Amino acid sequence: MKVRNILGERFKERAFDIESQNLMTRGGYIKQVGNGIYSLFTPAKRIQNKIEAILREEMDAIDGQEVLFPVVMPATLWQSSGRFESIGKELLRFKDRSGADMVLGMTHEEAAVQLAMNVAGTYQKYPFMIYQIQTKFRDEPRARGGLIRVREFTMKDAYSFHTSQADLEKYYERAYRAYERIYARAGVPEVIAVKSDSGMMGGKVSHEFMLLTDIGEDSIVICPECGFRANMEACEAITENVPDAELEPLAEVFTGEAKTIDEVGALLKKTSDKTCKAVVYQRNSDDSYVLIFCRGDREINETKLTNYLKAEIHPAVEIENANLAAGNIGPVGLDTNATVLFDKSLVGATNLICGANKAEYHLSGFCPARDLPGNTQFIDLTKAVEGGVCPCCGKHSLKIKRGIEVGNIFQLGRRYTEAMGMTYDDENGARVSPIMGCYGIGVGRLIASVCEEHHDDYGPIWPITIAPWQVEICALRADDASVRAAADKLYKELEDAGVEVLYDERNVSAGFMFSDADLLGAPVRVVISPKTLSRNAFELSARDKSFREDVAPENAAEAVRAKVAEMIAAVNAKVPERL
Amino acid sequence: MKVRNILGERFKERAFDIESQNLMTRGGYIKQVGNGIYSLFTPAKRIQNKIEAILREEMDAIDGQEVLFPVVMPATLWQSSGRFESIGKELLRFKDRSGADMVLGMTHEEAAVQLAMNVAGTYQKYPFMIYQIQTKFRDEPRARGGLIRVREFTMKDAYSFHTSQADLEKYYERAYRAYERIYARAGVPEVIAVKSDSGMMGGKVSHEFMLLTDIGEDSIVICPECGFRANMEACEAITENVPDAELEPLAEVFTGEAKTIDEVGALLKKTSDKTCKAVVYQRNSDDSYVLIFCRGDREINETKLTNYLKAEIHPAVEIENANLAAGNIGPVGLDTNATVLFDKSLVGATNLICGANKAEYHLSGFCPARDLPGNTQFIDLTKAVEGGVCPCCGKHSLKIKRGIEVGNIFQLGRRYTEAMGMTYDDENGARVSPIMGCYGIGVGRLIASVCEEHHDDYGPIWPITIAPWQVEICALRADDASVRAAADKLYKELEDAGVEVLYDERNVSAGFMFSDADLLGAPVRVVISPKTLSRNAFELSARDKSFREDVAPENAAEAVRAKVAEMIAAVNAKVPERL
Repeated sequence: MKVRNILGERFKERAFDIESQNLMTRGGYIKQVGNGIYSLFTPAKRIQNKIEAILREEMDAIDGQEVLFPVVMPATLWQSSGRFESIGKELLRFKDRSGADMVLGMTHEEAAVQLAMNVAGTYQKYPFMIYQIQTKFRDEPRARGGLIRVREFTMKDAYSFHTSQADLEKYYERAYRAYERIYARAGVPEVIAVKSDSGMMGGKVSHEFMLLTDIGEDSIVICPECGFRANMEACEAITENVPDAELEPLAEVFTGEAKTIDEVGALLKKTSDKTCKAVVYQRNSDDSYVLIFCRGDREINETKLTNYLKAEIHPAVEIENANLAAGNIGPVGLDTNATVLFDKSLVGATNLICGANKAEYHLSGFCPARDLPGNTQFIDLTKAVEGGVCPCCGKHSLKIKRGIEVGNIFQLGRRYTEAMGMTYDDENGARVSPIMGCYGIGVGRLIASVCEEHHDDYGPIWPITIAPWQVEICALRADDASVRAAADKLYKELEDAGVEVLYDERNVSAGFMFSDADLLGAPVRVVISPKTLSRNAFELSARDKSFREDVAPENAAEAVRAKVAEMIAAVNAKVPERL
Repeated sequence: MKVRNILGERFKERAFDIESQNLMTRGGYIKQVGNGIYSLFTPAKRIQNKIEAILREEMDAIDGQEVLFPVVMPATLWQSSGRFESIGKELLRFKDRSGADMVLGMTHEEAAVQLAMNVAGTYQKYPFMIYQIQTKFRDEPRARGGLIRVREFTMKDAYSFHTSQADLEKYYERAYRAYERIYARAGVPEVIAVKSDSGMMGGKVSHEFMLLTDIGEDSIVICPECGFRANMEACEAITENVPDAELEPLAEVFTGEAKTIDEVGALLKKTSDKTCKAVVYQRNSDDSYVLIFCRGDREINETKLTNYLKAEIHPAVEIENANLAAGNIGPVGLDTNATVLFDKSLVGATNLICGANKAEYHLSGFCPARDLPGNTQFIDLTKAVEGGVCPCCGKHSLKIKRGIEVGNIFQLGRRYTEAMGMTYDDENGARVSPIMGCYGIGVGRLIASVCEEHHDDYGPIWPITIAPWQVEICALRADDASVRAAADKLYKELEDAGVEVLYDERNVSAGFMFSDADLLGAPVRVVISPKTLSRNAFELSARDKSFREDVAPENAAEAVRAKVAEMIAAVNAKVPERL
């Protein structure tokens, strides 16, 4: 394709802070249509098509059957799983012309069960996996970062069905490996899997595939010692308290206007790990109160709290109705209608400062084991911390990183099949509901993530396996007959050889042409100009600057083809074997 | 793939009247999710993927650039063209979580202009064409026939932009030819192009591509003499009236309870072509009346009427407010607030019976040229008829057929670019709006149409170019070791040779296996059984019964491969050259 014919303009002005959004906008890849809604220009669609081809190959290789579910579904389908009621506003609901309730698909567990229902009625039909590549819509309140977080997106979603947990686990391993292969084939072998929270999907075991980057929205907990990795939401927090040799008695201390941990700690000369703080939430459903006590230097993990309560919550807006002394709430002598919870970070702690449930006073000498009832339960409700204890190897080794989630896999169990009444006859003739797994990858976010990971100041550096074009020919001074003839010839030779080649023969300056080429990000570049021809050569170089060399015009097509093959082989060398 | 692993069951019971819907349901291709909303099982998705590949190749070959527009669009985009207001309920409108008005894309002219706007600002950028293959939703009140008429569907839609009408016309010819190639490659070269009405799309010249079939929803007018073809909606109706030698005077005739053309004609012994009938409509907007007079044997073409009035209409529900004598309405001495129109079928007619605008009376001797005011306009508002005059060659040769629309192409003009303010600098530096064409094909409807055209009582007979699998191996008695070994070997040889092969080695009866194979519709079948092995042969046959022959086991893979290649070549032989 000729650069002059590509619809879309490239420009220099920095448009956005997130680099992938900036470069994909400046390079003519995407155009916003509405909040979190984009059209893709041809370069982005070409990348998407290549990723979709990789997804199909890897899904087919783990015995996936490609199907297609609808974008628009009747509400009755989502009512059959209970999610029509349980999911928030991100599920877009509307009425059709007949007044029937409908939804836009943000995920397709219900549709997968509906498709498989009645056609997998005996155990011999299992296991099977069905997948689709389809548009999804999630009415995301905080769209951002171009394709990083959008409302409408193309997704590969897969659903497997099994007759035993062991069979699901075996398949889950194959899917996990397929995901590692997909990221490696897309040029981002650095994507890592982390244990994750299953959230609204239901089920117990799940993993997210994360690309670590400072612009990531997720916090990832990593142990460099043992390789443990988890999303902050799903990471057990371990706090080691060394009890003081001597236990102080509980004593009221006047603290006046000091309310926060920092203020009280400063006043009483205690570090925050020697304090016990109170945090108040309210349930979304009825605004009822939830009061949590934890060590003063810990933060509440709202996902853990939500999962424990089995209820959506929000930080308390006002606490007048809870009979709590704001800023002086403490665990001893409490009189409240709130649900009161104690975090594990208090286990073994001694001589803490805590609120006295009385304006202007705190208590010193709080020892949870001594001062709380013997049957008090301590629950894991806080976030792991940098330098904290690894739940796997026990060392004080934890690191906290930022990551973008580029895929996820879930062991769903019977959550959907039971709710929807899907069953099969097992070996003994009993009717049982199958066990499911599901496996998702958002294509647009993966594109943006690759760009985020592989770029320089001038543009994306696309991995050759997903680059919109593998090679760009830059003919400088194409008005020069010998340049034009040489470039036209190479263009034809490369196209004939099946190389995906972009050809820039516009009458523009070298700076302008190279700047466009940087934004279009073809991994291999061939420069043909009066200057290169004067030394009887074309200049072959890599977008990532890993090589730059002259080649003789008569060998150029073969040299380019070999270079492309070599770069593809380099990507594939990092792809693990299939399971 | 093994038949035992395909998700979906095949069954014998006739489920629907329309044969494609019946066979695609019985064969495990589709499953209904809601009214006009389907999921596709793997066999259908495989067909769809093959058609999509053909579409991409043909669109790329006419310089198309694949892009992707969103399914969900902000209402503001559709307001910018005026269609948010002008299109009826088939455009699904809803509000997102922030209360913003949104629509589901049923077509993407606005999105195409939005994408191209600001990036095609000079005449040198033209012409260009962008296309997508994407899900669309049309809130169709009368979904029917499986994939024939649905609410959600996958569509290839393309949009071209030009600086002159001549350039659009040149490109339109190429697109027209690309469409002929697409249908031929999909195995339905019998699809014909007919002139069509442009409807809500705007623009003047347009064509529909029609597969003629009795279950079609459109009436197609064809002239076997000159090749003229048009959709009934867009076909000029020509009526030749031979004036009687002697003009009768206007005279009132008592007709009593006789109201309809048939009743009055029978009473007065006049054929319907010697009568003038009145038809009353109402405008949807304000229920105001429209009264049309036409020859008694003609029917009103509502599309022509809508286009003439530039208003949506419906047959009058009650006419009390129009001061009209129901059943006795006539063109002479009329006193009404209705818009009164005269159809061309009255031109040259003489001595007609018509209503007298008075209960129980008609007039005889009505001669439009004599009895209507001299400035009366006669407009073409009726349908062409079987045996009628061809608007092209003038012979009384017209045939009326039924057809399914499987694609359409439109010359849109500046309808959208002007409304949305898209402009470019022309050679003289003036700001001008580009001229557009658009080109659509619904993938699912094409699949159903091919099935409708190519099936027998037992199942679809898929053309080899879009068949879900090219070959099926039926191993009868695969529990017989020699059958199993021979079939396994052939399966592997064919897969290694790149043939798309389905393998049935289930322990089922021959009748059961063949019945499933008929429904799965692979064009080539290989039967391996103890009986065929006893004569040292495999039986090679065609799904369409065009051949059946024994092949030696050692030559079977090559014989099958050759047969597949031959069948592909036979399809391609009917594909016209590109323009």
